[in-house]
Amino acid sequence: MTKSEKVAIISTGMTEFGDLYEYEITGIANIAIHEALNKINLPKKEIESLYVGNMGSHLFEGQENLGNLIATYAGFTCPAFKIQAADASGAVAVRNAVKAIQSGSKQKVMVLGVEKMTEATKQYEAQLALASGLDTNWETRMGATMAALFAIMAKAHMRKYGTTREQMAQVVVKNHYNASLNPKAQYQNRVRVETVLNSKMLADPIRLFDATSLADGAAAIILASEEVAYSYDSEPVFIHQVKQGFAPIALHLRDSLTDLSGTEFAAQKAYKDMGISAKNISVAEVHDIFSIAEILAIEALGLVEKGQGGPATENGDTSLKGSIPVNPSGGLKGRGAPLGAAGVAQIIELYDQFKGTCDERQIKDIEYGLAHSMGGSGGTSVVSILGR
Amino acid sequence: MTKSEKVAIISTGMTEFGDLYEYEITGIANIAIHEALNKINLPKKEIESLYVGNMGSHLFEGQENLGNLIATYAGFTCPAFKIQAADASGAVAVRNAVKAIQSGSKQKVMVLGVEKMTEATKQYEAQLALASGLDTNWETRMGATMAALFAIMAKAHMRKYGTTREQMAQVVVKNHYNASLNPKAQYQNRVRVETVLNSKMLADPIRLFDATSLADGAAAIILASEEVAYSYDSEPVFIHQVKQGFAPIALHLRDSLTDLSGTEFAAQKAYKDMGISAKNISVAEVHDIFSIAEILAIEALGLVEKGQGGPATENGDTSLKGSIPVNPSGGLKGRGAPLGAAGVAQIIELYDQFKGTCDERQIKDIEYGLAHSMGGSGGTSVVSILGR
Repeated sequence: MTKSEKVAIISTGMTEFGDLYEYEITGIANIAIHEALNKINLPKKEIESLYVGNMGSHLFEGQENLGNLIATYAGFTCPAFKIQAADASGAVAVRNAVKAIQSGSKQKVMVLGVEKMTEATKQYEAQLALASGLDTNWETRMGATMAALFAIMAKAHMRKYGTTREQMAQVVVKNHYNASLNPKAQYQNRVRVETVLNSKMLADPIRLFDATSLADGAAAIILASEEVAYSYDSEPVFIHQVKQGFAPIALHLRDSLTDLSGTEFAAQKAYKDMGISAKNISVAEVHDIFSIAEILAIEALGLVEKGQGGPATENGDTSLKGSIPVNPSGGLKGRGAPLGAAGVAQIIELYDQFKGTCDERQIKDIEYGLAHSMGGSGGTSVVSILGR
Repeated sequence: MTKSEKVAIISTGMTEFGDLYEYEITGIANIAIHEALNKINLPKKEIESLYVGNMGSHLFEGQENLGNLIATYAGFTCPAFKIQAADASGAVAVRNAVKAIQSGSKQKVMVLGVEKMTEATKQYEAQLALASGLDTNWETRMGATMAALFAIMAKAHMRKYGTTREQMAQVVVKNHYNASLNPKAQYQNRVRVETVLNSKMLADPIRLFDATSLADGAAAIILASEEVAYSYDSEPVFIHQVKQGFAPIALHLRDSLTDLSGTEFAAQKAYKDMGISAKNISVAEVHDIFSIAEILAIEALGLVEKGQGGPATENGDTSLKGSIPVNPSGGLKGRGAPLGAAGVAQIIELYDQFKGTCDERQIKDIEYGLAHSMGGSGGTSVVSILGR
């Protein structure tokens, strides 16, 4: 057995994100799985493990053996299981698959992020699903929702740094714009600041258009060690780092309402291990589950100074032509947020950016790309760095 | 970074299994976690990842960010997440943790298997939990339960091999006897064959006493690479192999009703990679979720010939003083079956057997010990081999 530090992405597959009412969860999974296999004509038996990132299969499908279910109906005969860390499930699955390749025991593994949410037709069930990523006793059962907790963070950020309601709305405007250039995005419509500001209030200052919505979707990547990768791709894209950071699950247990400490930790560790800094990041896909989350994320990642997330967004620094484009895919807000699929879709967007296949949303001269995923209100954070 | 193939168990901790009504899931987890840490005076910050094996935290606690929750209330600040593969969740978590050590990136990781089931006071919810490990569409929604599927397997085995109702009952008698020698077991009472045969019918031929019951419990192990292990233990117990096998999730999709093909595959692969055979196994902990499951398992593992699972049990071959003791702990049936904890508890029993701390249920002269865990009706199988 040999040991490879860098892990290559040798293929990808992805459904459109949105209301895929025609398909069950196995059907959605199969679209992404077979696209990834077919692109490189890879026989199924060459996949040695299937890592499924999924958050809510019990709530949505009554299913707690999802890896085995999806493997069965995809025609795989390899080990399969589910990895779950709330809405960071897909990213954590990628992290574990990367370790499996690094352990030398696997040559090719697939990570599938998948979620089928729209069958839960009641908004109540979707709120429950999201709230199950929080502290069950001291947040969820006390009536806190994800929107309420991010509203607290938003208020604290506004007070501390002067972040404005309009700046938060600009995140949404940008991500819808980017999504309109992404054929697989859930939302193809552009929105104006006024639309966001006039939308229904969820939890002051967060309004309906600041939030992501229900979506179905699947995203699959095939990973391989460096020595295997060149058989499939003469210019592979590599995952150089996947770091996971911790913060207490409950917002009230954290030292700060405005710092995503788990994200900061993971990002700094990733930069340090690579000998780079945030300045070497050319493009980032971040966890914009609410608009304020993108502002918090780009600060925690060091892409902008603390307190500058709002102004940087307003100035266009994070737009496609800005100094540090954020969420070129449209993000969770625009591309869509099928929870378990979100973290894997981010990796695919960066892969596509490196491959130069992003048409109107293509970023030029990318040194490194960064993906940032969170579980719950920030208790779980995953930061991945991709490059050549 | 160095690379180690063998992975050592450097500490263990475990709650009693049963109705631990005084504790929430975080409380149960903390007992096992702190016992494992305290035994070797390991500071929490030295644990680099927490792998949580759990099946039903959404059904039982409405919690989908369980790793983060447990890490928070245990005082960890390391990455944490949940791994789920129905009732094999604990064993699959061990497999992933072993790979993390092998990848060279982690020196010490903890695997916690945990389940809190007794709060689901309605038997209906427990049946739902178990059934969520089956094929949701073509089994669960058609009314199939775990008991019903294992009843089909039992009937097929009786017809093909002449396995008797009494032989199945002997599995229960043996495992309750072993449990009566295990202070942490849920059931301390011994039972007679007649008790099993006269218990309430669940799904012919499976009766109430053939089945495992609701339990709460947690089991934790700390894993380290070989070079680290000797700092904590001059005679470490090693996990030499953890293999996962696949079978279609639905019983009707399998080639045979009497062969656990995923278990066979995993066992044969483990034996082959070690250059041993089933004859080198001195003791086994197997997945006796129903009594027939133990008979199927010992055949699939090659510990007895096909069709000989019933007679071998009847003859006492699998008893504590038999040629191949099976489930010395009492198994899922006697020790208890908190679903996500079951696979980790098996590893702890083997560890204790190697350490010679099992008092009246101690097996002598152990060469290798084998742990076998399954998810659902056998779609997911994990086989681990422990030794010096």
